[in-house]
Amino acid sequence: MKRKLSLSKVYRLLEPGPVVLLTTARRGRANVMAMSWHTMLEFEPPLVGCVVSNRNYSFDALRLTRECAINVPTVELAAKVVKCGNTSGRRRDKFTAYGLTPVPASLIEAPLIAQCYANLECRVVDSRMVRKYNFFVLEVCRAWIDAAVRSARTIHHRGRGEFMVAGRTIRLPSRMK
Amino acid sequence: MKRKLSLSKVYRLLEPGPVVLLTTARRGRANVMAMSWHTMLEFEPPLVGCVVSNRNYSFDALRLTRECAINVPTVELAAKVVKCGNTSGRRRDKFTAYGLTPVPASLIEAPLIAQCYANLECRVVDSRMVRKYNFFVLEVCRAWIDAAVRSARTIHHRGRGEFMVAGRTIRLPSRMK
Repeated sequence: MKRKLSLSKVYRLLEPGPVVLLTTARRGRANVMAMSWHTMLEFEPPLVGCVVSNRNYSFDALRLTRECAINVPTVELAAKVVKCGNTSGRRRDKFTAYGLTPVPASLIEAPLIAQCYANLECRVVDSRMVRKYNFFVLEVCRAWIDAAVRSARTIHHRGRGEFMVAGRTIRLPSRMK
Repeated sequence: MKRKLSLSKVYRLLEPGPVVLLTTARRGRANVMAMSWHTMLEFEPPLVGCVVSNRNYSFDALRLTRECAINVPTVELAAKVVKCGNTSGRRRDKFTAYGLTPVPASLIEAPLIAQCYANLECRVVDSRMVRKYNFFVLEVCRAWIDAAVRSARTIHHRGRGEFMVAGRTIRLPSRMK
């Protein structure tokens, strides 16, 4: 069961650098890709910068619809995430193929992935860096989180088949937001 | 003892989202700040996008010298990283105050931090996004790594004093680079 997450807390999900699943929809056809190249750009409204290569099938959907969802998976989904990364949506419905459940979003056409513990509904707000870097600036318009998940065991890409799984949490007297 | 790391492997350090220490130098005065808002933009030459707020003392040094180093700390340095994040270099030499050892870089004026297991010498190659987002595009010109460190126990910012420590590594049949 998910609840709305305050937009001011979205950075806490993405700042540690998890692999995410980016969902798009174009002409009624949804797609999902794995993505690691993303960063926060602003706290509130939360802005996220991310690279979606123009070799990815999702690129045109993102560029043309200017909408997507960022879905944050945990380690239980690692095998499915890798399959999403290994294949293209051009020839395959990855949701059906890998047993990912698309659920309707509230503000955008792209679906959310039920199995991911957090889902961020996003709109493209700046595409000036797309031509040179395939870099999109997204604004997170609504955020959902499974309140039962604490210290989410996210996965973090180290390349060449290696993923780091989020380990223990430490607390330090940080004044950083 | 550090060796040169192939530039083609730099993404493997930054993609998992570690907190890094950014070093700059201006008019012979070095500084260091903690940073979590960064992403890979290109594999090779490695391009990194990062946000350095114009409220940070490092901002002017980075903007004017167009050079910096990205130093990747592990959990042993967590307390010092937090201190760097809590204080400004405007009034303090953080290297001396926190026992971080600056060592000369090979291609840039900014120092590297000896205690960090990896060091990336960077030049600013695009500052078009600085005015709007404080977002700098860096090219990594040289990379150094402590070859003895495997599965580095990096730290990952979750906000409000919480940091996730890199956990176990899993291997999956990924075809992603």
